[in-house]
Amino acid sequence: MNAYVMLGVFQTSQKLRTSLRLLSRAGLPPVDLQVQLLLRGRSPLSATFSRKLHLGPDGPASSPAAAPRRLPFSRVTVEDLTFFRKTLPGRAITDPDLVQSSNEDWLKSVRGSSEVLLRPQTTQEVSQILSYCHSRNLAVNPQGGNTGLVGGSVPVYDEIILSTSLMNSILSFDKISGILTCQAGCVLENLSLYLEERDYIMPLDLGAKGSCQIGGNVATNAGGLRLLRYGSLHGTVLGLEVVLADGQVLDCLSTLRKDNTGYDLKQLFIGSEGTLGVITAVSILCPRKPKSVNVVFLGCETFDQLLKTFQLCKGMLGEILSAFEFLDSECMRLLNTHLKLANPISDCPFYIVIETSGSDSDHDSQKLHNFLEEAMTSLLVTDGTVATEESKIKTLWSMRERVTEALTHDGFTYKYDISLPVERIYQLVTDMREHLGKRARSVVGYGHVGDGNLHLNVTSPAKDPALLASIEPFIYEWTAKFQGSISAEHGLGLKKRNYIYYSKSRPAVAVMGKMKTLLDPKGILNPYKTLPDDLK
Amino acid sequence: MNAYVMLGVFQTSQKLRTSLRLLSRAGLPPVDLQVQLLLRGRSPLSATFSRKLHLGPDGPASSPAAAPRRLPFSRVTVEDLTFFRKTLPGRAITDPDLVQSSNEDWLKSVRGSSEVLLRPQTTQEVSQILSYCHSRNLAVNPQGGNTGLVGGSVPVYDEIILSTSLMNSILSFDKISGILTCQAGCVLENLSLYLEERDYIMPLDLGAKGSCQIGGNVATNAGGLRLLRYGSLHGTVLGLEVVLADGQVLDCLSTLRKDNTGYDLKQLFIGSEGTLGVITAVSILCPRKPKSVNVVFLGCETFDQLLKTFQLCKGMLGEILSAFEFLDSECMRLLNTHLKLANPISDCPFYIVIETSGSDSDHDSQKLHNFLEEAMTSLLVTDGTVATEESKIKTLWSMRERVTEALTHDGFTYKYDISLPVERIYQLVTDMREHLGKRARSVVGYGHVGDGNLHLNVTSPAKDPALLASIEPFIYEWTAKFQGSISAEHGLGLKKRNYIYYSKSRPAVAVMGKMKTLLDPKGILNPYKTLPDDLK
Ligand SMILES: Cc1cc2nc3c(=O)[nH]c(=O)nc-3n(C[C@H](O)[C@H](O)[C@H](O)COP(=O)(O)OP(=O)(O)OC[C@H]3O[C@@H](n4cnc5c(N)ncnc54)[C@H](O)[C@@H]3O)c2cc1C
Ligand SMILES: Cc1cc2nc3c(=O)[nH]c(=O)nc-3n(C[C@H](O)[C@H](O)[C@H](O)COP(=O)(O)OP(=O)(O)OC[C@H]3O[C@@H](n4cnc5c(N)ncnc54)[C@H](O)[C@@H]3O)c2cc1C
Repeated sequence: MNAYVMLGVFQTSQKLRTSLRLLSRAGLPPVDLQVQLLLRGRSPLSATFSRKLHLGPDGPASSPAAAPRRLPFSRVTVEDLTFFRKTLPGRAITDPDLVQSSNEDWLKSVRGSSEVLLRPQTTQEVSQILSYCHSRNLAVNPQGGNTGLVGGSVPVYDEIILSTSLMNSILSFDKISGILTCQAGCVLENLSLYLEERDYIMPLDLGAKGSCQIGGNVATNAGGLRLLRYGSLHGTVLGLEVVLADGQVLDCLSTLRKDNTGYDLKQLFIGSEGTLGVITAVSILCPRKPKSVNVVFLGCETFDQLLKTFQLCKGMLGEILSAFEFLDSECMRLLNTHLKLANPISDCPFYIVIETSGSDSDHDSQKLHNFLEEAMTSLLVTDGTVATEESKIKTLWSMRERVTEALTHDGFTYKYDISLPVERIYQLVTDMREHLGKRARSVVGYGHVGDGNLHLNVTSPAKDPALLASIEPFIYEWTAKFQGSISAEHGLGLKKRNYIYYSKSRPAVAVMGKMKTLLDPKGILNPYKTLPDDLK
Repeated sequence: MNAYVMLGVFQTSQKLRTSLRLLSRAGLPPVDLQVQLLLRGRSPLSATFSRKLHLGPDGPASSPAAAPRRLPFSRVTVEDLTFFRKTLPGRAITDPDLVQSSNEDWLKSVRGSSEVLLRPQTTQEVSQILSYCHSRNLAVNPQGGNTGLVGGSVPVYDEIILSTSLMNSILSFDKISGILTCQAGCVLENLSLYLEERDYIMPLDLGAKGSCQIGGNVATNAGGLRLLRYGSLHGTVLGLEVVLADGQVLDCLSTLRKDNTGYDLKQLFIGSEGTLGVITAVSILCPRKPKSVNVVFLGCETFDQLLKTFQLCKGMLGEILSAFEFLDSECMRLLNTHLKLANPISDCPFYIVIETSGSDSDHDSQKLHNFLEEAMTSLLVTDGTVATEESKIKTLWSMRERVTEALTHDGFTYKYDISLPVERIYQLVTDMREHLGKRARSVVGYGHVGDGNLHLNVTSPAKDPALLASIEPFIYEWTAKFQGSISAEHGLGLKKRNYIYYSKSRPAVAVMGKMKTLLDPKGILNPYKTLPDDLK
């Protein structure tokens, strides 16, 4: 079969990315992960807090995900509040209703009991707050858009919430180099809009863009949709300004592409999840806005063919390839069953979503045509379609983006975000399916093939501790056996901190502990997060 | 004037990159920087070393570049040698003739007096050596290809030289993901050849590729010719194995694109110049080999037009732009005068070399044509040419690559490798020219516009301390005023360590010092390098 025959039904569109954004926001699943048991309770200022106020995502305190005991930090006093109110007039919030939403994470899976929410506007204010908290031994929880998925963004007990939401100024943008410098609290989507008017884009993009902040993105080393093309934040972030635990301002806010004068300290804060310092400003290298964007939806018979298609794609689409995502037929079944989404092509065991972004739409379409012809004639893909109108584009991207939502309708969902050598990705799904047998309702796999990032999900009619015991530590051991990562992009936060040894060696974790002690000797910054309990 | 008229004389070629490589190797300047006063002297094992054996690049001990006093490390004893010989049979070298070349840097500007050269083959051996040296308080100088330009790769006194040259095995290459894992001593060019056979390339490329090693590249965070396109090593290096000062092996050799489990420790070693640990293995993400490469040589009337051309180029060549380099008319004069190289286009104040790399030669040529038409009609560039045969290509690239060589014929050369916001780059050259007036013979500017990296060179008939005093600290102060970096890609090593404060804040340097103490408490790894003397 000639690809051009197939291409007869294909259509192209340049508005794809816009609609993708709309789509992914519309598709935000409200109860996405296991909704956890929350013990509610509120105590007055300076009173005793219940040690069991906050449970980790797996309920019982014996679980590695459960919160450890409260550490002996000071409790906020009336004098402390006086200081905060003087330092941040009108921006030291104690009204329980206002503090409430900052205590609970996006998934509504964990909840702290902080009674103080501080909203500084300047680096100087952050420095004053931390200097004070350090001297008073008060614990602090840095918070951005509170969209984190591992329980890292909210307090575990009564940590003071330091929100960067009011630190939302763009400081500079250099149109020649594409270097943007801004405060940490700028919302990702606002930065994107600002840049698009100037013919640039942010080098990262996430479903949470409407709420997440650039500081939070850097603190979690967020991956997202554009990583395949523009690489990780370790490469695109050029500078950071960070306030250390003792209030000292560390100015590494370089706006240069090259600077080899001493150690690159800023790197340490990228992905440190608020445990080493509060990021107050970011400078980042932004790519030019692509003039042309295309999306294709393809079907493959085997995962091996899918990988070969990825190979071919890298070779033939080369510099214009911007996304290579996949889902399996189990995902398609759930989309059909629960969301009534029709398969846009014929039934296949595997489906691929490919996106291209380039500077010349004719060239891009032609490259896509050549690639598709080759993929069809070499029998790598069996069917496919390209969208043009916004509605069709939405429908196509839904097949990838709404899998999470479909899963929530299938029952209680156990979710994993695993990184593996790309050729192993699907083997984990097959092995898990075999391992669990009839105990699971569905075992599905989808994710960012291009980045070696698998989303493995297991559903059951209801919460099922026996099933969980079959999944874990099996999945972590399997991942470790193939040198994978148990957290590809979401970080460790509270929920996964004790699983770190599946992906990092003991000496490495010990060095991390020393770094923490070096930069935050009293451990006041985001305690109970990222590092395992046995280090403390 | 229509660009297509101009394009009549343009020719394209796909062999360009090959010839560029040949060219840049042929053009290696043998005496490139200020050749420094070397005091020769050799003492027998365990005897007293002269404190003044080694002088920094500026001679007098009062210069910030001069070597500090020898620190109280132990001296190598006969027992030590017995241990080394047992651990590394036949690979613990003490023959002065063999150790000699490892004592002297590539520029022949600094020279140490080590009497022991160790050549381990395995990580285990490196670990045994460091563990031993640590317990004995023996200083160690990690060495790769010894092509570093800041005096960091050779001992200052009698530090033991630990060479990675025999650690040259490729450990794995994943054809699907393009992830290469290899020992640190692999020579960059060998890796490139290995990959090119597999349709991939290394994400970095330097003039020194025939000698420099991937471990040395990572240790210096080398930039080079492909940075504009593939980004820095902080983004492309996925994993490192490092042996710490006490012999402990830190395994961060991830081969994953995404891994957010804890702090990204490997980042700290990228650009640490051998002062925090010995890199023993590297995993790195490699791009596909481009199928089509083109080069253009253009002329501009003003630097402002050159910057506008860069802007246009980024927009119209987009994803295929792989190099944007420049030189000024003073460079051209030196090329004409000293190397008899003829200007391939008409005389202009500024010249640009643009390289494109893409997956479709027709598309690439067409994009180039469109860009050139636009650049010509909007009067940004006044003349230009594209090469096709290898000889013409060589000639074109010579205009950029052989400037360094031409400079050595112009007199004694003061060389600077500065990073600046791209719009400031040339202002420094103009200001310097005005500032020095007739005291300098030539003041020339060239470099990687695309990366904001300027090579500023000043020549005089002979070494001239008064001239030097006019250049420094003027140049460093100027650079600091515009938040530039005094070392864009070469690092600080011995020569520039004390200038760090021009580019980094005191608190940042203090944190660097603490990191050093944390990872190398006895300071045995590459002492006297990278960090300023006042920290020790
Ligand atoms: C719908 C949805 C889609 C998502 N998609 C992706 C995705 O594609 N890829 C991906 O990688 N992640 C994704 N995430 C999770 C991702 O981590 C967050 O979206 C985002 O990066 C966090 O930013 P935030 O501002 O919300 O940070 P928060 O959630 O507020 O905080 C996250 C962590 O960073 C710390 N932190 C926040 N701000 C600072 C600061 N200024 N200084 C120091 N520490 C700080 C917090 O203490 C916390 O530990 C998604 C989340 C949602 C809800
Ligand atoms: C002709 C020429 C062209 C160059 N072009 C460029 C360029 O375009 N861009 C650029 O950035 N640089 C360039 N350089 C300088 C550049 O730093 C080196 O070429 C290269 O990166 C160093 O590698 P090496 O193996 O030679 O390291 P060496 O010179 O041996 O060592 C350099 C530093 O790294 C340390 N080191 C080396 N190996 C290890 C290891 N395994 N573990 C820990 N520390 C180690 C050493 O102690 C030393 O401090 C050039 C140099 C030359 C001579």
